[in-house]
Amino acid sequence: MTDILTSLAPLADRINQTLADLIARDSAVVARIGGYSFQGGGKRLRPLVFCLVAAALGLETTPAVMTTGAAFEFLHQASLLHDDIIDLAEVRRGRAAAHLAFGVPETVLAGDYLLAKASRLVAELDNPACLRILARLAGTMALGELAQLGARRQVDIGAAEYFRIIYRKTAVLLEGAAKCAALLAGAGAAAIAAAGRYGRKLGLAFQIADDLLDYQGDEASLGKPVGHDLEEGKITLPFILAREALPPARRERLRRLAGPAAGPLGPEARLEIHALVAEGQGLASARRKAEDLAARAAQALALWPPSPAREQLAGLAGYVTARSC
Amino acid sequence: MTDILTSLAPLADRINQTLADLIARDSAVVARIGGYSFQGGGKRLRPLVFCLVAAALGLETTPAVMTTGAAFEFLHQASLLHDDIIDLAEVRRGRAAAHLAFGVPETVLAGDYLLAKASRLVAELDNPACLRILARLAGTMALGELAQLGARRQVDIGAAEYFRIIYRKTAVLLEGAAKCAALLAGAGAAAIAAAGRYGRKLGLAFQIADDLLDYQGDEASLGKPVGHDLEEGKITLPFILAREALPPARRERLRRLAGPAAGPLGPEARLEIHALVAEGQGLASARRKAEDLAARAAQALALWPPSPAREQLAGLAGYVTARSC
Repeated sequence: MTDILTSLAPLADRINQTLADLIARDSAVVARIGGYSFQGGGKRLRPLVFCLVAAALGLETTPAVMTTGAAFEFLHQASLLHDDIIDLAEVRRGRAAAHLAFGVPETVLAGDYLLAKASRLVAELDNPACLRILARLAGTMALGELAQLGARRQVDIGAAEYFRIIYRKTAVLLEGAAKCAALLAGAGAAAIAAAGRYGRKLGLAFQIADDLLDYQGDEASLGKPVGHDLEEGKITLPFILAREALPPARRERLRRLAGPAAGPLGPEARLEIHALVAEGQGLASARRKAEDLAARAAQALALWPPSPAREQLAGLAGYVTARSC
Repeated sequence: MTDILTSLAPLADRINQTLADLIARDSAVVARIGGYSFQGGGKRLRPLVFCLVAAALGLETTPAVMTTGAAFEFLHQASLLHDDIIDLAEVRRGRAAAHLAFGVPETVLAGDYLLAKASRLVAELDNPACLRILARLAGTMALGELAQLGARRQVDIGAAEYFRIIYRKTAVLLEGAAKCAALLAGAGAAAIAAAGRYGRKLGLAFQIADDLLDYQGDEASLGKPVGHDLEEGKITLPFILAREALPPARRERLRRLAGPAAGPLGPEARLEIHALVAEGQGLASARRKAEDLAARAAQALALWPPSPAREQLAGLAGYVTARSC
């Protein structure tokens, strides 16, 4: 797994340099909040996918292409800034969330600015198809977050609804980044569709892995409270698959513990939920689902000509899922 | 003044119908928040300007043109939703602000969605120049709001900085709406520039009038506290022009009363600030400035061929300033 990260390091460095250059040109306050947000780390998954799809389909990753790829990272950072306000998150990547460091008003506005910056960078391309993709997916992401808010503590949410939510809040951005790169590379309809399929399945696998981490942290050191998602009432795939697999009485217990009538979750309730999710094989089943999606992401690229970039895209899909193990 | 509103009523009705149709197609939660925000009222100034500029330059206001005009209203509504969170406003147009009625998370996201919706509606045009204008101005608006936050309680702010802030937070959107309409009408460079000049000066006049209303309400019924702007530390044109006109001792008193060292403003301090602003002729001077800008907005259209729409644009400039009287 470190192999793929080593192989991607030179590209990731170029992406980070592009992001730093673009942020440095911003007004002082945006540069401060944006810089804080970016310095927190992150895998730069969206520009990586953009650049690798471009390279795999024969488009040289010139500075202009890197800049367009950066737009997808700016959109992602904008949504992180707003999501942390929404989730009342206090910590992001081991540091105070931006809204606590800079204030809610400044963080709302810095997010708005980064959303507009993403549009502006893509608007400079004069490629209306890419712009339509970007505008649509930004709206879809907001709808996904809204749907997630509406689904809080909905303990009977099905896997289909879960996938609809994570497609909108996460996968649509990777799908859009991959499709835009293919469009700019002048690829044919089949190759563009394959790029979209890769990004979509990668995004779904990535989000499931992320949702698993919220349970896994706990599993690694028993006694720690179950993660933030559950506290916020987010019902994710491990819970859903466990609920479906448990016998009726245990299922009912799980539903009651996490349902809206239960009130704020205490540490005991969280541990019991965690135990029930493990009992119903929720973690293992969700991990299998993520691995299956990652494999299908890599398969989507089978029709492209072989290239180092195509191999790296396949490796990235494997890496994304391995995070949860 | 009611003449111009009567003359614009049929167009305003069509705009409201377009907005209602576009909102009705949205997901339930966005439709609820968006509908609430729109039902609160408003002059639909941005789509009015868009449609009138289009008509004055020979572009028929088809449903597609109305839809593009609506994009500028969606962008405006998005910024209102976020601004109310930023300003901790409790009331908007006589009702609870959206974030109190629906929650901060839902309102942040509904704003994000409307921002993306505005981009999407303009992206459907396949006119890259319009999209670049929209993407740029959305970023500029966020920067203007950030600059305004940074200028809170800056009692020595000059008129030039005030104008830079209100250009970015308010006028740039009207300038962009007018320029996009001229672009879509296929106007020449001079007519496009005139449209931009009209929108910019109209926007500046409009914002000064808005800032005057925050003082005027008080003037109308003495004893009421000075408005919300001052409470938030917003230093607007009446204050700035009064500060410049007052003799040194009175100026110093005004600076101290509103400055960062003064702490939260009590009713007495607010009344005294108000009296000092009146003493320095701040309201009359600011009103003259707004009227001058409105007149220059109308003059910007002098080279266009005469038309009912051109007359309505001139009338709109007059109306916008008259609001403060």
